[in-house]
Amino acid sequence: MSGSQASGEAGGGRPPRGGTRPTIKAVAAVAGVSTAAVSQAVNGTGRLSEATRDRVLAAAASLGWSPHASATALRSARTRTFALVVRRPTDVLGADPHFGELITGLEGELAPRGYGLLLHLVAGPEQERALYERLAAEGRVDGAVLTDARADDPRPELLLRLGLPAVLLGAPDSGLTVPSVGLPRQGAGVREAVEHLLLLGHRRIAYVTGPAELLHTRLRLAAFRDALATARTEPADVLETDFSEAAALTATERLLTAAERPTAVVYANDSMAVCGIGATLRAGLRVPEDLSVVGYDNLPLGRWMHPRLTTVDQRVQEVGAAAARALLARCGEDAEPAPPTGPPRLVVRESTCRAPGP
Amino acid sequence: MSGSQASGEAGGGRPPRGGTRPTIKAVAAVAGVSTAAVSQAVNGTGRLSEATRDRVLAAAASLGWSPHASATALRSARTRTFALVVRRPTDVLGADPHFGELITGLEGELAPRGYGLLLHLVAGPEQERALYERLAAEGRVDGAVLTDARADDPRPELLLRLGLPAVLLGAPDSGLTVPSVGLPRQGAGVREAVEHLLLLGHRRIAYVTGPAELLHTRLRLAAFRDALATARTEPADVLETDFSEAAALTATERLLTAAERPTAVVYANDSMAVCGIGATLRAGLRVPEDLSVVGYDNLPLGRWMHPRLTTVDQRVQEVGAAAARALLARCGEDAEPAPPTGPPRLVVRESTCRAPGP
Repeated sequence: MSGSQASGEAGGGRPPRGGTRPTIKAVAAVAGVSTAAVSQAVNGTGRLSEATRDRVLAAAASLGWSPHASATALRSARTRTFALVVRRPTDVLGADPHFGELITGLEGELAPRGYGLLLHLVAGPEQERALYERLAAEGRVDGAVLTDARADDPRPELLLRLGLPAVLLGAPDSGLTVPSVGLPRQGAGVREAVEHLLLLGHRRIAYVTGPAELLHTRLRLAAFRDALATARTEPADVLETDFSEAAALTATERLLTAAERPTAVVYANDSMAVCGIGATLRAGLRVPEDLSVVGYDNLPLGRWMHPRLTTVDQRVQEVGAAAARALLARCGEDAEPAPPTGPPRLVVRESTCRAPGP
Repeated sequence: MSGSQASGEAGGGRPPRGGTRPTIKAVAAVAGVSTAAVSQAVNGTGRLSEATRDRVLAAAASLGWSPHASATALRSARTRTFALVVRRPTDVLGADPHFGELITGLEGELAPRGYGLLLHLVAGPEQERALYERLAAEGRVDGAVLTDARADDPRPELLLRLGLPAVLLGAPDSGLTVPSVGLPRQGAGVREAVEHLLLLGHRRIAYVTGPAELLHTRLRLAAFRDALATARTEPADVLETDFSEAAALTATERLLTAAERPTAVVYANDSMAVCGIGATLRAGLRVPEDLSVVGYDNLPLGRWMHPRLTTVDQRVQEVGAAAARALLARCGEDAEPAPPTGPPRLVVRESTCRAPGP
């Protein structure tokens, strides 16, 4: 934290604001503990209960307080760099234009201010932790953008301890110890997609999903099941993938050769939807006449291809921009919090139509 | 320069190697001037002729010598970061998966060694120069990857002066004052594409090209014209674009409504080819039966879509990896020079076929 504004800048969610600099006393008051307990909570020392510790860390995050405020302020005067650490195999990164969109959104705010983005790819959680520790110790960055919010995510607490301002990309209510930026009602897009397909008469709708450990995978899958349940319908199938081309092809082939072939498939990202459409056309079926297809991301690609892709716009660039502005503000830059964005929304194009007759 | 190996590591091209550290004396000897003249050349002082200055800078680059060797060596022990500065509008960056591929290739070598990539987007040449100066002054990076080689490119000389090791992405023979990494015979891929189309009976072949100030635009366009000239044929049309979706659509529509419609189009990248195929199908024409389409890049996307895209593989990931290894070696890391890669090559898939009858 570098003085100026308290946190919780973007995407709704966290409360307090104001011109005053957050103090350890204020954190203690909000959490209802002593200042010594605050120190223990952020340093992982002492014998606080799990619940107390969580309460303190949440209070610290809501006030935008961090134990190394002055060190961080010093740093932010220096590096004009934010970290983006991605835990994903390099080949999936290259194939998925999602990251290009995210970086574009971030750069739209960073570039005009002369800020850079330090990109690191890591193989696993241990390497990731060591990297953040090194970046903090060496004063390499002023803050970090955390992507791919996970269940039991250790990163927010780690960064709080390291005194590195951070913003978590995800639903606005998913962050615990760092402010988060994201779209409200994450499931709304998938719900809209299912409702769109139900209205078109589809009853056998399958879902090709991403890795289960990602929070958004769970949120969207829950929305998919809920929306179908409202219409007293079951998923035709739910197939998990690692987002790779190979997995998308395998899943699609399995769906196309099922005894009761689905009439519509929702894919967890646009890249997999494009793979799925290719596989369907090659199998001699038509899109959308024989199979309706919905993607997720709203990448530019979906507008170019034929048929144009019906997809969920999750406003990756907007979220990236909001994250950048939130971090910039925490580093004392003149960046207004981004206006709250709406939920993800369905963009209907040409890859969906009425369900084929029985 | 941090001691270890001399430059010219990858992709052939530049000569000397060896275990000795390059010295200003060696540069002076190779260039046939005094050591004082070397200093003047790299510092832009004195009254050397343009030709002498160029000769000195080329000698310095070929030996991998830089005026601030010790400062650089010190730095390389510290940052484990390379700069990638891209001069392109943010929206084109987001839409073009080419950069994702390049970053993937770089990260494949950087990530396992704990190196990061500092990404900066800049709007123009002045901002770019100021940024490199700041990065060097603040010791933010150990080196830089220069992309989009340009005619009269000022960057190699600038980085040499700043004492920042750099590698230029481009044809292996295009670098003057920094080593460059790239595919030999840049035009070979476009030439192969044209020969492939000629063999299929096409005589009205158009080319949708990129911005004229980029070196590879010129090289490929020259290869396109040459290959047609060999068959005593003229281009049906050559349309310049800024690589954007809108420009690709405009160009395609113009080609499709021409009095003498081309039977084949070569696009300067895969993204534009996908736009072009979409526009062609929407105009009620078939690909490839009515119009053969060739892309350039060999992005994963081309394998997914239907029809699968015939394209030129310019091995973006391989070139990125070679650039990373060359820079790592210059920073004293244990990175073998990448083996020389072959020229770009045509990958024939489904978007090209025999020319339609007259």
